[in-house]
Amino acid sequence: MEGDLALRLRIFDLNCWAIRYLSKRRQERVQLIGDMVRREGFDLVLLQEVWSEQDYSDLKAKLGGHYPFSHYFRSGVIGSGLCVFSRFPILDTLLYQYSLNGYPYMLQHGDWFCGKSVGLVVIKISGIVFNVYVTHLHAEYCREKDAYLPHRLVQAWELAQFIRHTSKAADVVLLGGDLNMHPEDVGIRLLRGWTGLRDAFAEAMHFEGCEDGCTLIPDNCFTVKTELLPFPLGIRIDYILYKAISSFTVKCEELKTTTGTAPGMDIPFSDHEAVMATLHIQRQGQAVGATSSTAEPMLADVVTEARTEVGVGLRAAQRQRYSTGRMAVLALLLLLLQATAALGALAGLAAGQPFPKLSFSLLAFLAIGVLLLATGLHLFHTIEVKMLQGTEEQMRMALRALQER
Amino acid sequence: MEGDLALRLRIFDLNCWAIRYLSKRRQERVQLIGDMVRREGFDLVLLQEVWSEQDYSDLKAKLGGHYPFSHYFRSGVIGSGLCVFSRFPILDTLLYQYSLNGYPYMLQHGDWFCGKSVGLVVIKISGIVFNVYVTHLHAEYCREKDAYLPHRLVQAWELAQFIRHTSKAADVVLLGGDLNMHPEDVGIRLLRGWTGLRDAFAEAMHFEGCEDGCTLIPDNCFTVKTELLPFPLGIRIDYILYKAISSFTVKCEELKTTTGTAPGMDIPFSDHEAVMATLHIQRQGQAVGATSSTAEPMLADVVTEARTEVGVGLRAAQRQRYSTGRMAVLALLLLLLQATAALGALAGLAAGQPFPKLSFSLLAFLAIGVLLLATGLHLFHTIEVKMLQGTEEQMRMALRALQER
Repeated sequence: MEGDLALRLRIFDLNCWAIRYLSKRRQERVQLIGDMVRREGFDLVLLQEVWSEQDYSDLKAKLGGHYPFSHYFRSGVIGSGLCVFSRFPILDTLLYQYSLNGYPYMLQHGDWFCGKSVGLVVIKISGIVFNVYVTHLHAEYCREKDAYLPHRLVQAWELAQFIRHTSKAADVVLLGGDLNMHPEDVGIRLLRGWTGLRDAFAEAMHFEGCEDGCTLIPDNCFTVKTELLPFPLGIRIDYILYKAISSFTVKCEELKTTTGTAPGMDIPFSDHEAVMATLHIQRQGQAVGATSSTAEPMLADVVTEARTEVGVGLRAAQRQRYSTGRMAVLALLLLLLQATAALGALAGLAAGQPFPKLSFSLLAFLAIGVLLLATGLHLFHTIEVKMLQGTEEQMRMALRALQER
Repeated sequence: MEGDLALRLRIFDLNCWAIRYLSKRRQERVQLIGDMVRREGFDLVLLQEVWSEQDYSDLKAKLGGHYPFSHYFRSGVIGSGLCVFSRFPILDTLLYQYSLNGYPYMLQHGDWFCGKSVGLVVIKISGIVFNVYVTHLHAEYCREKDAYLPHRLVQAWELAQFIRHTSKAADVVLLGGDLNMHPEDVGIRLLRGWTGLRDAFAEAMHFEGCEDGCTLIPDNCFTVKTELLPFPLGIRIDYILYKAISSFTVKCEELKTTTGTAPGMDIPFSDHEAVMATLHIQRQGQAVGATSSTAEPMLADVVTEARTEVGVGLRAAQRQRYSTGRMAVLALLLLLLQATAALGALAGLAAGQPFPKLSFSLLAFLAIGVLLLATGLHLFHTIEVKMLQGTEEQMRMALRALQER
């Protein structure tokens, strides 16, 4: 590790869209992805949305020759979907599950069930310690009225905090994943500003692939065309980010994306395009230090902007906590009223049966159902309020620290 | 920071038992705790079970003069209960919520609702970086048949992993909290072995307090005497642990515990005894390195033992996942049967109404209730299975790494 050691690292990142029973031509595509990744011989492969452990096992069996080391991150009801294949030994792993991730009752947006997380694998290559993070943030279902923005911002903040706190002894930090944010969105600016990570697409000396580096494009037969109507070129939401922490420099020599249909096939690998980066890592004469890519006054603006959005989410969550609590109380009152009436009837206060039995029982069951449901939702929104308050408080602390400097 | 810098640090740790509406003489005791901590003038105060944010605010107002810096960690339905007061500026914080923490339906054991977590605060004193962790693990309700052991072991493992990954740039690591484990329990041995943390009680040059350092004692009027019957001296479950990471040494000069009733009062501060340590931190000539306190072959045995217990929990969780799934399917079948019968009746296949309407509706509601409940439980146990599998897998990886050395 003396002298001018230089290292070239090739990284592959893809949201595989491999949801059992739901994703089109899943098994065929997982095969295709495996074939391509084996053929190309990357150093690191970061995958998202590999929801089926069977798919992971199949990939592991196929890739074992070139990528002897791998890790699958388990979380949530159906897993985190995150996995890593590596040519180099994985020394350690850690999973951090985001504290907010949508709503369990939004069944049509299944994010809550996925236990969205960030996975960390520690790898050492030629004595250089790499902290490699792979993640997938909450999807954006409606850009105009994005109800999940506060949750995604909490995730972006937790991701940034997790990276900052766990990467202090690393030489190089790499992050790959589907961040579900456009390059200029506040969450991406927050993540980059607060960690000092740099965007491989923006830094690449040579680029080849979809225009503007888009990873969700209309030319891909699996994308939903109506969602991309306002963006005729597509959108860029999958990233490879990096930074050097100690006495190293990292440069992005080349960045590529796939461009829809896989070569020689009639389908693409996924509904997302893959991002492939070639990084050049070199030891420097002296320590570089963790340089922030965003100037600090600008960073303070970004944190303020993010904090405002989290505040909007907080007030919405407080309203929902209040209305679910009120509903639970009303259901309880109805039940008490019925119990009083029933007891009255039993005690013979009324000569006959005052209500038809059937409607009476149905109403009681309905009240019990509403009580249970509203109580559950009330608890859920109470947790949501706590986590949003906690994040807002942390951001306030960060702002104070930035302003004091 | 040149030469033989030495630092003396006084730390206070207490599980405050401050549960609103449930804990006896709560407000009076919180006042007492605040008075004592202000009078004694510690450097760091680590508290658990401060469930009410109002209590935290009251303490903050009272302690502001001596401890200008503080942080309350929010999580779960009623908060994490964790907070820190410090004489020195808190530079950064991070919260990690344990992935498993009991069962929501065990209402009599409220742990699930607390969002049990580990909180980290980073503090710099005279140029020395301290990573201070405060935590509270799942309670043990029955030592003979401890149904929560696998969950507590997952928490101990996650705590150890979180400390290892986040403390690499720290000079000194401190952990205070109610670990709900006896000193020789497998979880404590795992935590100490895997992180290299040392037990202030075992290392103290001078000790004063309850015999064997116990923190749950029969002499405390708030403890449940029947639970302590097998342990006439009490048990030790609250700890201050520490280690030096870089070129520092840490020694425990003195350890004290409170001994039941507060001086001059008729009640103790809490149902737990407080732990108070005086640490002596000194810069060394050369880096000490992260020394593991447990020899590695012994550590492998501890990890194996912990992994076996996690495996037992995994099989129990798999059984529960299966039985709740089966119950959901049965409820669904009953509903389908009823729907068929009702449709048959509507279509006039039966001449009259074949079933009494009331029983028919009640049965349908019952089936819907069972279906919803069993589905919810099935999802919950599926998550439990995933997290236990993930921990077992991580422990397997750790064992392989230990054996390869």
